[in-house]
Amino acid sequence: MKFPGPLSGRELDESALNETELGRLIDYWNAANYLTAAQIYLMDNPLLRRPLCRDDIKPRLLGHWGTSPALNLVYAHLNRLVRRTGQDVLYVAGPGHGGPALVANTYLEGTYSEIYPGVSRDVAGLTRLVRQFSTPGGIPSHVSVPTPGSIHEGGELGYALVHAFGAAFDHPDLLVAAVVGDGEAETGPLEGSWKGVDFLNPARDGAVLPILNLNEYKIANPTVLGRLPRERLNHLFAGHGYDVLWVEGDDVREVHRAFDAALTTAHTRIRDIQRTARQPNRTVTEAPIWPMIVLRTPKGWTGPHEVDGVLVEGTFRAHQVPLAGVRDNPEHLAQLETWLRSYGPERLFDADGRLVAELAALAPEGSARLGATSYANGGVRTEPLRLRDWRAHALEVDPARRGSLVHETTRPLGELLADVYRDNPTTFRVFSPDELASNRLGAILDVTDRCLVAPADPRDDRVSPDGRAMEVLSEHLCEGWLEGYTLTGRHGLFATYEAFAMVSASMVIQHTKWLQEASRLEWRAPVPSLNVLLTSTCWRNDHNGFSHQGPGLIDTVVPLSPGVARIWLPPDANSLLSVADHCLRSRDHVNLIVADKQRHLQYLTADEADEHAARGGSVWDWAGTETDLDREPDVVLAGIGDVPTLEILAAADLLRRYVPSLAVRVVNVMDLMALLRSDLHPHGFSTPMFRALFTDSTDVVVGFHGYSRAVHQLLHGRANPQRFHVRGFTEQGTTTTPFDMVVRNGLSRYHLAQLAVEFARTTRPGTDRLVSHCQDQLTRHHAYVTEHFEDLPEIREWTWSGGDT
Amino acid sequence: MKFPGPLSGRELDESALNETELGRLIDYWNAANYLTAAQIYLMDNPLLRRPLCRDDIKPRLLGHWGTSPALNLVYAHLNRLVRRTGQDVLYVAGPGHGGPALVANTYLEGTYSEIYPGVSRDVAGLTRLVRQFSTPGGIPSHVSVPTPGSIHEGGELGYALVHAFGAAFDHPDLLVAAVVGDGEAETGPLEGSWKGVDFLNPARDGAVLPILNLNEYKIANPTVLGRLPRERLNHLFAGHGYDVLWVEGDDVREVHRAFDAALTTAHTRIRDIQRTARQPNRTVTEAPIWPMIVLRTPKGWTGPHEVDGVLVEGTFRAHQVPLAGVRDNPEHLAQLETWLRSYGPERLFDADGRLVAELAALAPEGSARLGATSYANGGVRTEPLRLRDWRAHALEVDPARRGSLVHETTRPLGELLADVYRDNPTTFRVFSPDELASNRLGAILDVTDRCLVAPADPRDDRVSPDGRAMEVLSEHLCEGWLEGYTLTGRHGLFATYEAFAMVSASMVIQHTKWLQEASRLEWRAPVPSLNVLLTSTCWRNDHNGFSHQGPGLIDTVVPLSPGVARIWLPPDANSLLSVADHCLRSRDHVNLIVADKQRHLQYLTADEADEHAARGGSVWDWAGTETDLDREPDVVLAGIGDVPTLEILAAADLLRRYVPSLAVRVVNVMDLMALLRSDLHPHGFSTPMFRALFTDSTDVVVGFHGYSRAVHQLLHGRANPQRFHVRGFTEQGTTTTPFDMVVRNGLSRYHLAQLAVEFARTTRPGTDRLVSHCQDQLTRHHAYVTEHFEDLPEIREWTWSGGDT
Repeated sequence: MKFPGPLSGRELDESALNETELGRLIDYWNAANYLTAAQIYLMDNPLLRRPLCRDDIKPRLLGHWGTSPALNLVYAHLNRLVRRTGQDVLYVAGPGHGGPALVANTYLEGTYSEIYPGVSRDVAGLTRLVRQFSTPGGIPSHVSVPTPGSIHEGGELGYALVHAFGAAFDHPDLLVAAVVGDGEAETGPLEGSWKGVDFLNPARDGAVLPILNLNEYKIANPTVLGRLPRERLNHLFAGHGYDVLWVEGDDVREVHRAFDAALTTAHTRIRDIQRTARQPNRTVTEAPIWPMIVLRTPKGWTGPHEVDGVLVEGTFRAHQVPLAGVRDNPEHLAQLETWLRSYGPERLFDADGRLVAELAALAPEGSARLGATSYANGGVRTEPLRLRDWRAHALEVDPARRGSLVHETTRPLGELLADVYRDNPTTFRVFSPDELASNRLGAILDVTDRCLVAPADPRDDRVSPDGRAMEVLSEHLCEGWLEGYTLTGRHGLFATYEAFAMVSASMVIQHTKWLQEASRLEWRAPVPSLNVLLTSTCWRNDHNGFSHQGPGLIDTVVPLSPGVARIWLPPDANSLLSVADHCLRSRDHVNLIVADKQRHLQYLTADEADEHAARGGSVWDWAGTETDLDREPDVVLAGIGDVPTLEILAAADLLRRYVPSLAVRVVNVMDLMALLRSDLHPHGFSTPMFRALFTDSTDVVVGFHGYSRAVHQLLHGRANPQRFHVRGFTEQGTTTTPFDMVVRNGLSRYHLAQLAVEFARTTRPGTDRLVSHCQDQLTRHHAYVTEHFEDLPEIREWTWSGGDT
Repeated sequence: MKFPGPLSGRELDESALNETELGRLIDYWNAANYLTAAQIYLMDNPLLRRPLCRDDIKPRLLGHWGTSPALNLVYAHLNRLVRRTGQDVLYVAGPGHGGPALVANTYLEGTYSEIYPGVSRDVAGLTRLVRQFSTPGGIPSHVSVPTPGSIHEGGELGYALVHAFGAAFDHPDLLVAAVVGDGEAETGPLEGSWKGVDFLNPARDGAVLPILNLNEYKIANPTVLGRLPRERLNHLFAGHGYDVLWVEGDDVREVHRAFDAALTTAHTRIRDIQRTARQPNRTVTEAPIWPMIVLRTPKGWTGPHEVDGVLVEGTFRAHQVPLAGVRDNPEHLAQLETWLRSYGPERLFDADGRLVAELAALAPEGSARLGATSYANGGVRTEPLRLRDWRAHALEVDPARRGSLVHETTRPLGELLADVYRDNPTTFRVFSPDELASNRLGAILDVTDRCLVAPADPRDDRVSPDGRAMEVLSEHLCEGWLEGYTLTGRHGLFATYEAFAMVSASMVIQHTKWLQEASRLEWRAPVPSLNVLLTSTCWRNDHNGFSHQGPGLIDTVVPLSPGVARIWLPPDANSLLSVADHCLRSRDHVNLIVADKQRHLQYLTADEADEHAARGGSVWDWAGTETDLDREPDVVLAGIGDVPTLEILAAADLLRRYVPSLAVRVVNVMDLMALLRSDLHPHGFSTPMFRALFTDSTDVVVGFHGYSRAVHQLLHGRANPQRFHVRGFTEQGTTTTPFDMVVRNGLSRYHLAQLAVEFARTTRPGTDRLVSHCQDQLTRHHAYVTEHFEDLPEIREWTWSGGDT
């Protein structure tokens, strides 16, 4: 860790731009602006070495000019900061569609050509640079996975700041410069992200420097922040914990000077904060006031001021393409040429088409370049987690008495995660919306406090600025921080209520897309997986009621990239431990792990759990009556998920006792994607394996944790999928008992046992008795519910003790 | 509309509580606190008329005590405000699990017993009241659908303020008192909701009074806001546009006095703002500074101060149940009894168990009661929209030349919506994240401006405080405002990018659950449906790339309640108009409408579209070769969604031309849920109808808009579902051309035509030629992509002109 010293007043003065430096910096900015506009408009003649003609213009004009000059300005000044101070900087570009600006800059500094040699630093390369932009087969118009130096997709807006904070945690040497657009600033997730500062410990974490680009317009509307009086903005950011450095205007030299001074001031203050916090024997006790910059510049600054007599610069009309119809409108074509030539490309690029040397010298070198920083390619920084043998936390399950041990399934996981914290003190964090302890992961808190950078209070329990358990009542922050944390090369887990995981579902989708894209780019090294633990699940939110009962994230993740998406439903604690161990070692995956926190029956020894997890599904011959795999069973019972597995086992028990001659095979599946054919998902069961579990033709009664049709969609393409009869969550929720939950949704043992004899399609002695017993039990349950729920008597705790009575 | 006058100084003084009033008000509060605690703990002996014993205590203690005393305090003071001023008030309780507080108050005021006569205003009713709370078969522990006076489910946190603003729009007489918990205040959606004030026009809208209950703790952690210095909080809310009235302390009398004064002041200021804004010939030109209240009181105030020597009151330990293990711990039982008796139930309730008359007189009467306000039961206020015949906006489609007209599908919808605005000037709004015009709904702006309550700026285009087109760059605000707007009895539509609709997916789920629950409660009148238009869809975001390509909201909605969830995929503009007309008339549904904004071929006349929409799916005999419905076709081609329909039609055209003897039936489905069996969804095709479309056994090649397996899950349970071969979005996205998008995902006409002849399972003359033609075309496309995308030549606009060439 570096311990930066403060700048003296003399250093501050010395650091200011002199006239020569200012001129060069502006020219560097001109070059970036030029290439930005060129990418939007041109498909040839990239340096205007001949008069611009119709055929030089792309047939479809796309891309967002409006935000780009400001993004370019920030980039140029960050370059200077890096050169001047050696500061490690990661640039997060929130204004999503300012892609051409970031591409232009990474091209100017050389990283783009190093990564994509075809886009070389000459006229041919420039031609490809402009052609590829927002063109079929080319690159998206927004900052995206192919953009060097980025961990942040500029498509779905709202996550710039949360990603920035995630990247800064545990990276003490890093400054994340996060440009926030005033459009994006309207989203809920972005507004909620400012509070990252209350979780950022200057002693051990890096810094985030928010730069709000207040260009006042979105695509069609003024922005809310753009129209607020300056005083209200100062209040707002003071409330968020920031002191605003204002840079405003449309005079190029003045704005550059002012931004330079603001950036120097901000950086100095950040270094002061860090220096103070990092003094030996010093403890951080409250959140410092961090600097931020508001950069108020005209939208589409330096672009066409008016078009056809209508004001464009500084208005929403500059948001995307300020000059339209250029191919067919000679006046617009002429105006475009004037605009492009105003940057002086002939001065900026040499005869070979390369940025002139005196400007190229303004960029940092090597991995100090913003486009080349390893922070933006986290895989290259990733150290594997130190993981002990997870069996140390395994529950002792006696194979002779399976299901007799009852234990909170997630509690041993908490102990495992505590070990991970112990052994990886700066590269692992767990994120949770205020529910670590209630989700039985409290063992973590024996190792580290909850994090809050605020004065200590004796009323608190294990809360401190040094805490590394991240609890904040925002699924967006938990998910986004973890994304930023893993994309910059560290490991973690997001543990949350199953139903409310949907709050950040769109972020899971976008992250999955990112990983899918990244895996196609050789230069992007694999990053630690995004691990999401869904606990407090629908079946055991009987007490909280319907709004807390929703397994929908499974349905969200199922259709996503098979190269990335993984869904695990461990049936008990040991299998959860084995899966967690696997997920924490994995790379480039999104691992959804569904396991309830309440007390559940435990079935598998540690070794069995490991084998079960590795196979993804197994026959549990101890639970069925049919042991010879070569013989077709009369019916297969399959459990997927903890509660359904319990009901499946209870149903099998009923069948054994009432219809002993029925050949019943019991299967458990914990890797949901394994149901897909192996040509559709790398985890898909091979056809022989699928057959070994389910046969080719026997009917299968499935008890499933989520919406039942999620299983049907996965089974399409398997042999005779219509023989699978799935019972899962059917959106029948309320405030009730756990057992009533499974009855309401047709997933109870009594439903499953009846289905089993129905679909066994054979009548064996005892079938009638079984059916009548099941119907009897359900009738009694119904009567009990009708009678007692009305009158609300003492609640009987409902448990399964190896079979019903 | 009322035009309230300001309070004079004398009125303000006179309105202050005198000692008698204060004592009574505190006793009313005591009664509510008593009933709150009683609901959490008791199952019998509700008035402690005998010593408390073990068997009086519920076996499982649930519910959130911590937030409840503050909720009760607010309720008691709002009662007084209503009685004193006649103000219409809607109470939105953000602190989710404070359910017992709201139930207690609606019981005390009488509405609860009117709605649920079994919970009568006597000892028997009190017994039921306490027994039902958070008990199997009873009511949830949080504010929920059964709670009188609520439009807001307290389960998933974050939406209190956005619902409040949605309720206030176009309700000039309404004051929405929105209690925000400092836990909920950490969520992104809540933080993003403060800006509602910049869209609230005091001349025509009601008011929102945010009351932040700063009790400083969540379930296990301090809250971020709870730990901020007061100065930072003042800054924060000043930044959000509010002036904070602080009420702080733990002295009961002082806090009540201070809250009374703050509420009077807030109400007076609100009336002043409204009076000023509503003066004749006056225009609102900027957002006023609205009042809000910060109520800082101890968590679990008046509850057990210490338990077992550990501080509880004012800490996270008071969040849920402050005294645990009461049945088995005699000391805790005694402490509970002391606590409960501290409220003096024997003074508060009369011999019959009824609130004593002098306290009962504090509640408003009739529909002025907070639990009885019609604003919280919007269905009773709902007027049907005035809707003209949508055919006025229908496109002229010539049945002899179907597919020859090319038109932006959503543009006529914009014209229809403009009419709805014209004819329903105070009961209809469209909400959109800054994309109305770009989504081709710009006709709306000929009728009304975009709304922003900020000073006018000549650079803006049709933006004003009087505008009623709601554009804000936040899916959460759009969705949440619409929820609040419809739940209070008005109509609307949320139009958004398909991919980014996932941002607010969890809100759609929770709203669907709300409607499902509400439909079971006779007293809740049906409310206007929630209409969500997904446009800018995956297939036509070829230019924006992968992050903009995601049809996942379909998968989110498919498993939800069949009584509520509807998914429409109109294939062209006229069918979109017909569906929109239907949805705008409907009640209690969540209508997902998927239709792209770009130029598409148009197929159906207005009458045909109407009939097609009503049936949900039809045979398009003009597109196939098989016209006799009694004869089995060789293969069925089915299109679902605009782009897939285009490809299906093109494939049919290929088949007609190359294999004319093949009997091809073309089907179009626009009501996705109709694929479900009719016993599973009210829209499900009957078996004869399903057979008439798809036969019982012929193979069906389906082109589907979304993830293909969504169709497979719906088809499970239909005859021979494995004969359906679905091509849809397979998460193969990038920056490319529209046609390349369908090729990448195997949905192109060439893929579909080959599938058709493969699954026709019969060889007819021309089959080989067709297959070789298709493979040829795909090879050429592949070569084109490989060659040209690399070199990025001029993009050829790709269109279909009635068939390929």
